[in-house]
Amino acid sequence: MKSLLLVAHGSRRAESNAEIAVVAKSLSDRVQGNYAQTGYAFLELAEPSIPDGIDALVKNGATEVTILPYFLSAGRHVHEDVPEIVNLKQKELSDVKIHIAPYIGEAAEMIDVLVAISESDNK
Amino acid sequence: MKSLLLVAHGSRRAESNAEIAVVAKSLSDRVQGNYAQTGYAFLELAEPSIPDGIDALVKNGATEVTILPYFLSAGRHVHEDVPEIVNLKQKELSDVKIHIAPYIGEAAEMIDVLVAISESDNK
Repeated sequence: MKSLLLVAHGSRRAESNAEIAVVAKSLSDRVQGNYAQTGYAFLELAEPSIPDGIDALVKNGATEVTILPYFLSAGRHVHEDVPEIVNLKQKELSDVKIHIAPYIGEAAEMIDVLVAISESDNK
Repeated sequence: MKSLLLVAHGSRRAESNAEIAVVAKSLSDRVQGNYAQTGYAFLELAEPSIPDGIDALVKNGATEVTILPYFLSAGRHVHEDVPEIVNLKQKELSDVKIHIAPYIGEAAEMIDVLVAISESDNK
């Protein structure tokens, strides 16, 4: 069973973390043809952690987990921290295929979003 | 003269900061009908700073500066740090109209980008 885990940085502000839950819910509705379930997790400062987020999906039947890094640039978090945590979990869960998708900042469509904001702000 | 300033967090990794320069260049090409010039700046860990980024645009003729926060969630940076720095600069530059646009994470189109990544990753 293919599952998706949206991974964000996490914030000390509860409202920021709540935004991620909303994004994950909208994403879940949009990708359910491809992914049976969509969860979310945080690298730090908030719960659930990435290992806990993966565990929740696996407990619910996931055999494949795609990690979707909700980060804008390829800093230390994207290059080191998230892969390190995911790799450790992968070693523990040898029956589950865990894979990290490109981080959102790398998507070509991000420019379209910036253009849309700057245009609507210019009206 | 309307100008745009893409404001990112900044990273200790030079490659991450270089990504922002590339994004700003692409954005500049796309919005030049609305904004005469597009620059970029970093909240911390990298140069140019936000005040320096604003100064560069103003030195080049900007009379209006739209700050475009390249942040995914409304944490402390979006709610406090960026506005505080921008407000201080606004007080100094009373002839320039400085305005903060919605941060990118708030854009409805962000879900489309996540859907695109998760679909292309599923192929």
